[in-house]
Amino acid sequence: MNPSAEVSPQVLSSASGIVRIAVDCMGGDHGPSVTLPACQAFLAAHPQAELLLVGRPDALAAAQGWQRCAVVAASEIVEMDDSVEVALRRKKDSSMRVAISQVKPREDGVVAADACVSAGNTGALMAVSRYVLKTLDGIDRPAIATVMPNQKDGYTTVLDLGANVDCEPEHLLQFALMGSALVSAVEGKHNPSVGLLNIGEEAIKGSETIKKAGELLRSVANGGHLNFCGNVEGNDIFTGRADIIVCDGFVGNVALKTAEGLASMLSSFIKQEFTRNIFTKAAAIVALPVLNHFKNRVDHRRYNGAALLGLRGLVFKSHGSADAFAFEQALNRAYDAARNRLLDRVHDRIVETLQALPTAAPGGPQIPVAKTA
Amino acid sequence: MNPSAEVSPQVLSSASGIVRIAVDCMGGDHGPSVTLPACQAFLAAHPQAELLLVGRPDALAAAQGWQRCAVVAASEIVEMDDSVEVALRRKKDSSMRVAISQVKPREDGVVAADACVSAGNTGALMAVSRYVLKTLDGIDRPAIATVMPNQKDGYTTVLDLGANVDCEPEHLLQFALMGSALVSAVEGKHNPSVGLLNIGEEAIKGSETIKKAGELLRSVANGGHLNFCGNVEGNDIFTGRADIIVCDGFVGNVALKTAEGLASMLSSFIKQEFTRNIFTKAAAIVALPVLNHFKNRVDHRRYNGAALLGLRGLVFKSHGSADAFAFEQALNRAYDAARNRLLDRVHDRIVETLQALPTAAPGGPQIPVAKTA
Repeated sequence: MNPSAEVSPQVLSSASGIVRIAVDCMGGDHGPSVTLPACQAFLAAHPQAELLLVGRPDALAAAQGWQRCAVVAASEIVEMDDSVEVALRRKKDSSMRVAISQVKPREDGVVAADACVSAGNTGALMAVSRYVLKTLDGIDRPAIATVMPNQKDGYTTVLDLGANVDCEPEHLLQFALMGSALVSAVEGKHNPSVGLLNIGEEAIKGSETIKKAGELLRSVANGGHLNFCGNVEGNDIFTGRADIIVCDGFVGNVALKTAEGLASMLSSFIKQEFTRNIFTKAAAIVALPVLNHFKNRVDHRRYNGAALLGLRGLVFKSHGSADAFAFEQALNRAYDAARNRLLDRVHDRIVETLQALPTAAPGGPQIPVAKTA
Repeated sequence: MNPSAEVSPQVLSSASGIVRIAVDCMGGDHGPSVTLPACQAFLAAHPQAELLLVGRPDALAAAQGWQRCAVVAASEIVEMDDSVEVALRRKKDSSMRVAISQVKPREDGVVAADACVSAGNTGALMAVSRYVLKTLDGIDRPAIATVMPNQKDGYTTVLDLGANVDCEPEHLLQFALMGSALVSAVEGKHNPSVGLLNIGEEAIKGSETIKKAGELLRSVANGGHLNFCGNVEGNDIFTGRADIIVCDGFVGNVALKTAEGLASMLSSFIKQEFTRNIFTKAAAIVALPVLNHFKNRVDHRRYNGAALLGLRGLVFKSHGSADAFAFEQALNRAYDAARNRLLDRVHDRIVETLQALPTAAPGGPQIPVAKTA
């Protein structure tokens, strides 16, 4: 690791107003051919930002001479199909791991970067992040949160998206608190609403775990520590009934992939219909501006950048197949989160709830005592 | 119950080539104003079909004099928000229950109808069907199966969609067998492929239950009793990678509702874009034939009619909000299923697998011994 002269790692970003992001430039399906142009565009749009470009220096040569930017060398690459085991045990000098290490506080509490972004494979990114950074006090399991567009022309934040296949009610509460912190930090919403993903709106619906999670969330909401709006259903991801929707990682992953699959099918059907013959092609030319406007509105690239929440450091995950525009959005989300102190917010929210719950809800369910990771 | 002179309940439909369907005419959001026009259109299109129209005779007066049709009186209606308890214990003469009773064999084995269709509330329909008809030997839990369109211009059948919130591997196997029987009966596909819904394609992915279900399905497939194509993901509902996708009812319900929510949002966005101003409205007129073609292709009404599988009788569920066109599709599906002996196929498939598995897969997992309901 050899940050060049342009940035000084000793400067605490939060004090100076500068936000510094470590970028795993080698990750994802495309590596530097996507990440470098995205970094360049991001720097141009954010005069207060600095980047640490992590990867093989020869592959990052194009970035030489860029302002507010330094290359941090890493000799290995976690491939998209590498197992967690390989990423964790065998590639200790991977660009992914080195990028994550930049957000780990040193002994004096100083961090080299405020957030880290990678398009590497999700399982490896979560495992390495967890290993290098550890979880926050009060968090048993980190979660992956992303946003999806909704009918209110806003976003719905959904978590978990696959980090945890089996969840206890306490984990769903932790997701609710972390999701609230994320939305208030990144979208500036005070006290955003949280819904529990279920298969009916009534409190008696769902599995035992979900029913217990509902009770727990209601009890925390009664104590004033959560804006819980009850059960929601799959379609509510898009109606915007809740700012945040919590679910276990299996269900969240299926919902996300189902939505991606449907969007992709509909988009290919529209294309087929408009290219069917000369008349439909003519219609397409006339309708093009409208169709483009529609396309931009639902462009999934705009929502790229999932947060890994619950760690002692900010890590954002880009889609592996992201192009430069999409990767830049992930950088934007990481920047907003760091600038608005997401890490402190998650920490404060958890601590507050932990301390207040026993008094706020006497006799109600208790959050398990915080584990030190 | 007083079938009029036009049909004779003694005639065994399967022997005569006639297919008789009992219709809960009072169920759903709209009752007879939707179900009667649907029945009329259905009868016109199916000269081999007969209908038993179940409901309050005064509400069904419009059907007087229709050919191949009889009214079966039922004095009560299960409302859309009635609890299972109310439907089961308090409304014993509901149109839903009387309709279901028509497919229950009498002591001499004769049935009044070959299938039953209702747009009433799902929970009540499943509970009453289960109570009146009982489950088939070898089936622990009935499941709800529906079809969704896929990119191959075919359908993917997904089950379960909400009848079972927690499932054991054995239940997922039963879903796989029942789904295979359904697709071969209704779509005429020999040995359709089955995928297990998971959060990754690798066999090591997912919860313990899912991993064990994968092993069980593989073992049955090795015995030649199932065309199992491994793990699939949420997006594969729409890629058409498998003819049938099995999952527990919680996950299936979330996937279905997520897809419905996204489709509804995209459709409202397209409408908004094309009605934004005078230019976009002009573009809409030019693009209308193409947009209509697209709309027809993905029209969810065409896929209406979910099968309740695993019961000793064929029951189909229409969307509660179905219009006459949609309700007619549910009648069509019930007709196809009855004509192609779906009930026998499910029964045969289960019995075959039960008998063959111990020899076919020595040392492999065993299906639990069939329960007599």
